[in-house]
Amino acid sequence: MIRLAVDAMGGDYAPKEQIEGAMLAIKRIPDIEIKLYGDPAEVAKYLTNDERITVIPTGYVIPMGEHNPIKAIKEHPEGSMATALASLRKGENDAVVSSGATQALIAGAHILVRRMPGFKRTAIAPMIPSVDGRGTILLDAGGNLEIRPEHMLQQAYFAVVYAKEVLKRPDPVVGLINIGTEEGKGRELDQEVFQLFKNAGLFKFYGNVEPKDVLNPPCDILISDGFTANIVMKTMEGTAKGMGTILKRELKSTLLGKIGALFASKNLKKFKKAMSAEEVGGAMIFGLYAPVIKAQGASHAYGFYNGIRQAADVVRAQVYPKVAAYVKEAGVALGNEE
Amino acid sequence: MIRLAVDAMGGDYAPKEQIEGAMLAIKRIPDIEIKLYGDPAEVAKYLTNDERITVIPTGYVIPMGEHNPIKAIKEHPEGSMATALASLRKGENDAVVSSGATQALIAGAHILVRRMPGFKRTAIAPMIPSVDGRGTILLDAGGNLEIRPEHMLQQAYFAVVYAKEVLKRPDPVVGLINIGTEEGKGRELDQEVFQLFKNAGLFKFYGNVEPKDVLNPPCDILISDGFTANIVMKTMEGTAKGMGTILKRELKSTLLGKIGALFASKNLKKFKKAMSAEEVGGAMIFGLYAPVIKAQGASHAYGFYNGIRQAADVVRAQVYPKVAAYVKEAGVALGNEE
Repeated sequence: MIRLAVDAMGGDYAPKEQIEGAMLAIKRIPDIEIKLYGDPAEVAKYLTNDERITVIPTGYVIPMGEHNPIKAIKEHPEGSMATALASLRKGENDAVVSSGATQALIAGAHILVRRMPGFKRTAIAPMIPSVDGRGTILLDAGGNLEIRPEHMLQQAYFAVVYAKEVLKRPDPVVGLINIGTEEGKGRELDQEVFQLFKNAGLFKFYGNVEPKDVLNPPCDILISDGFTANIVMKTMEGTAKGMGTILKRELKSTLLGKIGALFASKNLKKFKKAMSAEEVGGAMIFGLYAPVIKAQGASHAYGFYNGIRQAADVVRAQVYPKVAAYVKEAGVALGNEE
Repeated sequence: MIRLAVDAMGGDYAPKEQIEGAMLAIKRIPDIEIKLYGDPAEVAKYLTNDERITVIPTGYVIPMGEHNPIKAIKEHPEGSMATALASLRKGENDAVVSSGATQALIAGAHILVRRMPGFKRTAIAPMIPSVDGRGTILLDAGGNLEIRPEHMLQQAYFAVVYAKEVLKRPDPVVGLINIGTEEGKGRELDQEVFQLFKNAGLFKFYGNVEPKDVLNPPCDILISDGFTANIVMKTMEGTAKGMGTILKRELKSTLLGKIGALFASKNLKKFKKAMSAEEVGGAMIFGLYAPVIKAQGASHAYGFYNGIRQAADVVRAQVYPKVAAYVKEAGVALGNEE
């Protein structure tokens, strides 16, 4: 049995959607059992099926708008997120899923789960949609604003193993997000990363990728520093949201448009689904001792279920032991034994 | 008469679309005259109406895929772009419009047009679409990869005057592109810029804006360094393109979808138009002695016409003399007389 720790209390619609997502996961995935960390009275309101689900009573919940989430998680080891994270290191669970505040989750994971030996930095890696429906790993979507090229090499390497083992892509390709495709483009960091990736020989490196190909990239993994990749992720989100608004408004503006939308309603729904973050599960935090998955803060049950499914996939595929073995082998090339 | 220098030879579909765009402009805008810089034999193929249009014969054309466009413009003062730019300094024209290679245009403008006194850096400022249809000024979309906060203040100030005088927005608001809305978010640069903008008192500063509001921002002007703003622009472009592909595919995938698309065809066209770069004209190069407008490389006649219209608007509104006066007045606050 794969043992998953689920933070029931984090998220814009917690605990309702988290608990419903957990029950959906239990129904659909036979080889998992779930520990739900949260306020027992709150959880009891929504938990209608406790088959393979154990409730672990916890205290404090980090408010979603918390100004200092890092301080909050440090000062409240009794909270649902902190208790779930701590259970990994104790060997009580195999992975954590939470849609609580990202910064708290990263900080908590650093302290309570710790980094995998050989990783100097963690990275947040969401899957972003792609035109071909396969999705692309984006990193680092918000962990490290200032970073060294060798840390990005480690992150990329982690993503490559993940793409191989979980996404079943035989030979994952890494692309560097940049403002031009030619070698030598970009800031000093980008130029250094380009050379390092090109010469490391640890994975297939495509070279620079401009974000005008962000939904149709020539690679499986898109990487940049934590500031830039976060900007890419949020610009995609903003453009998709804005375009959705414009499309809806235009279709509603005339009778023919309304009729057209009625005929094409299934197609428009599929279009919306193709761009939805709910479909692709959560963001992995790469570089930790054990898997921690950040589901979207605004997750509903289905999106949260997808985060749980992803956690189960990662554990089942033994991604973390494999990464650890690869990293040991690649030691010098990854900059770990210099 | 407003005297416009038009580079007939730069652009993916030059000179045909450029010349047709120029003729359209002449037809629609009564107070302009155009000098077309280009190969006379080529121009003659498409120029069917030379009312208020003079052809200025020039030599070399920078190829669109040129690896070193900066070197190319320096070494070929006889080219269409270089000759058009040089005409500004000589007082022969009031503005330049070109859809040639961006880097060449910026470098050429620096050498041949020069910067406005008080401006340490130029910036490329395209209009990006917005849900309300008004559009937003984005800068710096690719000029300066590494930049100091005070240069960004100058650029923002230029944009504010432009928004006031050309876009007729009474009290333009500036937003700083960032990964979070709270004060203190982002890199060191972002934090410094935040403080500088907040304390300068030169314009209304909204604070940080996350790009998930990029199509619906709480401001008229979105600013970041040349790397980040370029990434934002290209991610918008890529997301819009990819979403367009997915929408088309979904609508074509079933008979009902096709019928719906047929009914809603006008609405879908308007949707496409709302996201099109052709509508909003070209990118201004801020901070120069005189207006230079970069129309999209892939401009067709209508898009190029919009660039010409924009140039005429800028000259007619006397934006540059006004900016120069404002800049002189704001001297110390802009960091120019320290």
